[in-house]
Amino acid sequence: MEGVDHLAHERNSAQFDVDEMKIVWAGSRHAYEVSDRMSRLVANDPAFRKDSRAQLTRKELFKNTLRKATYAWKRILELKLSEEEAGRLRFFVDEPAFTDLHWGMFVPFLKGQGTEEQLQKWLPLANKLQIIGCYAQTELGHGSNVQGLETTATFDPKTDEFVIHSPTLTSSKWWPGGLGKVSTHAVVFARLITDGRDYGVHGFMVQIRSLDDHSVLPGITIGDIGMKFGNGAYNTMDNGVMHFDHFRIPRDQLLTRISQVTREGKYVQSDAPRQLVYGTMVFVRKAIVIDASNALSRAVCIATRYSAVRRQFGSQDGVETQVINYKTQQSRLFPLLASAYAFRFVGEWLQWLYTDVTQRLAASDFSTLPEAHACTAGLKSITTAATADGIEECRKLCGGHGYLCSSGLPELFAVYVPACTYEGDNVVLLLQVARFLVKTVSQLASGKKPVGTTAYMGRLQHLMESSCKVQKAEDWLNPSVVLEVFEARSARMSVECAKRLSEFTNQEEGFQELSPSLVEAAAAYCQLIIVSKYIEKLQGDIPGKGIKEQLQILCSVYALYTLHKHKGDFLSTSTITPKQASLADDQLRSLYSQVRPNAIALVDAFNYTDHYLGSILGRYDGNVYPNLYDEAWKDPLNDSAIPDGYHEYIKPLLKQQLRNARL
Amino acid sequence: MEGVDHLAHERNSAQFDVDEMKIVWAGSRHAYEVSDRMSRLVANDPAFRKDSRAQLTRKELFKNTLRKATYAWKRILELKLSEEEAGRLRFFVDEPAFTDLHWGMFVPFLKGQGTEEQLQKWLPLANKLQIIGCYAQTELGHGSNVQGLETTATFDPKTDEFVIHSPTLTSSKWWPGGLGKVSTHAVVFARLITDGRDYGVHGFMVQIRSLDDHSVLPGITIGDIGMKFGNGAYNTMDNGVMHFDHFRIPRDQLLTRISQVTREGKYVQSDAPRQLVYGTMVFVRKAIVIDASNALSRAVCIATRYSAVRRQFGSQDGVETQVINYKTQQSRLFPLLASAYAFRFVGEWLQWLYTDVTQRLAASDFSTLPEAHACTAGLKSITTAATADGIEECRKLCGGHGYLCSSGLPELFAVYVPACTYEGDNVVLLLQVARFLVKTVSQLASGKKPVGTTAYMGRLQHLMESSCKVQKAEDWLNPSVVLEVFEARSARMSVECAKRLSEFTNQEEGFQELSPSLVEAAAAYCQLIIVSKYIEKLQGDIPGKGIKEQLQILCSVYALYTLHKHKGDFLSTSTITPKQASLADDQLRSLYSQVRPNAIALVDAFNYTDHYLGSILGRYDGNVYPNLYDEAWKDPLNDSAIPDGYHEYIKPLLKQQLRNARL
Repeated sequence: MEGVDHLAHERNSAQFDVDEMKIVWAGSRHAYEVSDRMSRLVANDPAFRKDSRAQLTRKELFKNTLRKATYAWKRILELKLSEEEAGRLRFFVDEPAFTDLHWGMFVPFLKGQGTEEQLQKWLPLANKLQIIGCYAQTELGHGSNVQGLETTATFDPKTDEFVIHSPTLTSSKWWPGGLGKVSTHAVVFARLITDGRDYGVHGFMVQIRSLDDHSVLPGITIGDIGMKFGNGAYNTMDNGVMHFDHFRIPRDQLLTRISQVTREGKYVQSDAPRQLVYGTMVFVRKAIVIDASNALSRAVCIATRYSAVRRQFGSQDGVETQVINYKTQQSRLFPLLASAYAFRFVGEWLQWLYTDVTQRLAASDFSTLPEAHACTAGLKSITTAATADGIEECRKLCGGHGYLCSSGLPELFAVYVPACTYEGDNVVLLLQVARFLVKTVSQLASGKKPVGTTAYMGRLQHLMESSCKVQKAEDWLNPSVVLEVFEARSARMSVECAKRLSEFTNQEEGFQELSPSLVEAAAAYCQLIIVSKYIEKLQGDIPGKGIKEQLQILCSVYALYTLHKHKGDFLSTSTITPKQASLADDQLRSLYSQVRPNAIALVDAFNYTDHYLGSILGRYDGNVYPNLYDEAWKDPLNDSAIPDGYHEYIKPLLKQQLRNARL
Repeated sequence: MEGVDHLAHERNSAQFDVDEMKIVWAGSRHAYEVSDRMSRLVANDPAFRKDSRAQLTRKELFKNTLRKATYAWKRILELKLSEEEAGRLRFFVDEPAFTDLHWGMFVPFLKGQGTEEQLQKWLPLANKLQIIGCYAQTELGHGSNVQGLETTATFDPKTDEFVIHSPTLTSSKWWPGGLGKVSTHAVVFARLITDGRDYGVHGFMVQIRSLDDHSVLPGITIGDIGMKFGNGAYNTMDNGVMHFDHFRIPRDQLLTRISQVTREGKYVQSDAPRQLVYGTMVFVRKAIVIDASNALSRAVCIATRYSAVRRQFGSQDGVETQVINYKTQQSRLFPLLASAYAFRFVGEWLQWLYTDVTQRLAASDFSTLPEAHACTAGLKSITTAATADGIEECRKLCGGHGYLCSSGLPELFAVYVPACTYEGDNVVLLLQVARFLVKTVSQLASGKKPVGTTAYMGRLQHLMESSCKVQKAEDWLNPSVVLEVFEARSARMSVECAKRLSEFTNQEEGFQELSPSLVEAAAAYCQLIIVSKYIEKLQGDIPGKGIKEQLQILCSVYALYTLHKHKGDFLSTSTITPKQASLADDQLRSLYSQVRPNAIALVDAFNYTDHYLGSILGRYDGNVYPNLYDEAWKDPLNDSAIPDGYHEYIKPLLKQQLRNARL
């Protein structure tokens, strides 16, 4: 049965041009071509095989990742790949490695915070991987509260050095990826102390290992922090612990684009605006949103294909029904499919936002920064939370077989979930967004014009009074109707929070007390952004047979599913009536039927190779069962018919000879 | 700092007698004493250590479990433990093993379906573990739809034997725990065919391995199905695949309490009612609900203790705030704490229900069976789904450190989630419940009196018309008010479904189309049961200082949190007004403040040893950081300062010597 496409019938039923959709998904024809080429390069190279990951010990797993990361770099050099191509190649290798932190955090932070001289010194080395860097911020006792970090960097004017020190156990650096075993350098965050005064947390460039023999430098203790969630997952990464004992670095290793310490030990702010740091945050979080759409689409691809292969109940003509035909399956799966597309497009928009922010920063225009920061933080929170839950839902949608590692879903979940915590805990971020929203509302009175994604607040009075015009189910397909109910719900929730906050004499106390509601208001605002950016996307030109129609259907699915899930918000703010909520559900069910014939083609459009998916259930050809069966026999437990342990344990048990058994 | 109780201050703030609460949690003083004794026995025996599980290879892990299971049996014999004690001991060993299926499925099914002669033959052997049994029902292509199983058992009158056969690849038995490497016997489900006719799926007792040398018997192929989700988790279990090639068993190995085949091959129904099988289902699902409260309480215990240890932000007097003091943390954590108690009490009630059902079956009274079956199925679905989500939420509540295996939470999640799928997929079960509810509604017209948990439907007219009396937040503390809104919401959702169904000419088509709403109506009914059984519990006598007050608070938390989460249901059925929903939220926040000083004592009441918890974050003494730090160094990656792979991969990379590197 190899070579047969078991899903051909599904593919033939698609009502749009899947090749064109691949380009929409990738963002451009160029991006599609690069991705396609790199994914095939990786998939066709046996050195990048990943099918035995769940069976390796920690040491084997880690060593194997070292090999792959080094081999990937070798290929990048040999093939003279561009930065973009190299990034895609690493992406498709699909295994967390020290290079992620080197390229994703160390280099960008250096670029953002280093002076010209510092860049000249380190960037060429970093760009050739002659030094390997990590990002050492969080500590054993300190995560979200960066300002509470304990590590100190005390300037010693006698030697013109900073003394980096970990004063307590809880000040040990903890979690940095690539730190435990590989990195030679680290950006270390420490409280800058000079002249007896604490100037708060700053970044320092610190060499931590010898470039000769890789030994950890004297005065520093480094180790790996141990096993993490999942079989392979992040255990390929050497997340590390690092403790400093009065370790000295030259003064010029303070990353000084923003502030400096003079030879005499005087702390001086540079001309560069402190807001620059927000640029890096927008950069990193934008990447996380795009990654959410990658991870969710991957899980959805697996679950959708398997739902078309799997049959259960409802026998007609002796053949059971494909589970993808059940409305319960559709009502769980298709909203996730729609979310993957929605997150893709909001990620695309964030890419634009980042460029815009960068240009404004260069021109010292900080006017949009609070809004850009809030919406990026909020979208990071909303999309990663939905993706983590969505992957697990996809796993459940695959029934029992989703629990097998060979489904690919357990590892995908385990490797993805830290995104809910790193780069800002999702709830902490939503509280930041809520602060911004409440401030925006309070400033309306003083005539301050809300910008960007909060521009709708400028129509606050209208949104507070407007009523939804939906009278029949089809009315819910009207984008302006949908947009307005999302705007009204968000505005009303923010206003309600602001109103209740104003009843407290102590604002901060009120903020703490009402924080659960504030989080919900922030989420409503973020969902509005996703819906509105998707609608904006649809207003543009999107060529290709049937493409726009499919994207419109998915946009409606995303919006109406979100409305259903948060029906309580819409009803309690009287944005819609119970009758209108019920009509939305009717329309949603009807949309599922429209998605159904296109489902397989819509996940084919992600253009994932079987190598990247890493899932027997999600195989392109749908030939699931023989491959599941064959895969089972590869488990080491099947090396012998009689298991290791039979003679010592099972036999004495069955033979009632336990008295003298050594157990 | 060893020996210091870092949480002593928290324990002193409790407003109730924690020792009395331990008894309430356990169910009785006797149950408490047995659990306490067995948990200490396991915790104090080094043979049961489990701290290195995440580091073992599959083979080592599996062999280690064989050792533990055998050793546990040896101890059970040596100490002459009762069945109850033995069960608790196995529970605290806390490692899935073949014995779970032997005692939990094989023996109960044998007892339920075997005739007297069959019991006499096999039960004494099974009770002494002279044979080890598993439960071979699901197949590679067939899970939820038991009636669709493909394995055949064809009677051959010539030899007086059944011929067990797997006609296709998809008919291979797939998933049975204990099958892959250990079991000597299996209850095999196969289509009984005799006289040319297919009589549907029946259970057969089949010996599958030699009792002499453990080899698989000729005509049968058996293997392990490979790695599953998580580091240790269910990989200690040999879930198996089994394929039959015309394997013959004597006729008397059809488990024949319900039906027989005569020597001539005639299929005969026995006098025993077919409904007996429902008794076993109620038994197994009741156990799953109780297990949900175990798993959820365990996760909650870890997250609660760590939330009291962890400090972040809000520095006062130079010390940061305990994260448990944040309302966002409380609003996520305390509902889970309340759910653990709520699931405990509904599990206790299910225990009663099972006894009641058994007695009625013995008296051939089947009148309550559909209701008992529906509510057990529904509660299995609701509690396992909430527990799986709740464990992951607890992990997130522990921030980054929850992602470490040493937190215990990743493994707890991975080992728990299959409960959402096995013994009835959660969504499939809710659809069964929905069918029952719709039937109940439709039978009201004909005057049929609803029984048990559906008795409230007898007041349907009142519930359809009643309006909630809440005027101020405190009114939500009134149990009868709460009960009535849950009844009204459930009744109105069921009635709405029934009404919409009646608009379809083809009922089955309507059922498929409306299935997403039906699932929600079923969930509403199950949540009502949980709330009502908790309220009933509080109406009884519960001695001990402060106990009842705490349980009342938690009951209100569970009810009002559920109301908040499903606000859309309550509002769209006009059961409550937006204002009343808002008052419920106010009351809920105020309840969180009442839970706060008691939180640690409320999780201490679960009486879990540090061994059972298996979590550094959840340590009883709260001494988290030094132990996290020490634990990290045990990872094999820390065996050497320079990692394995440095010379082959890192060095050539740093030294730009990749051209000749062997990668």
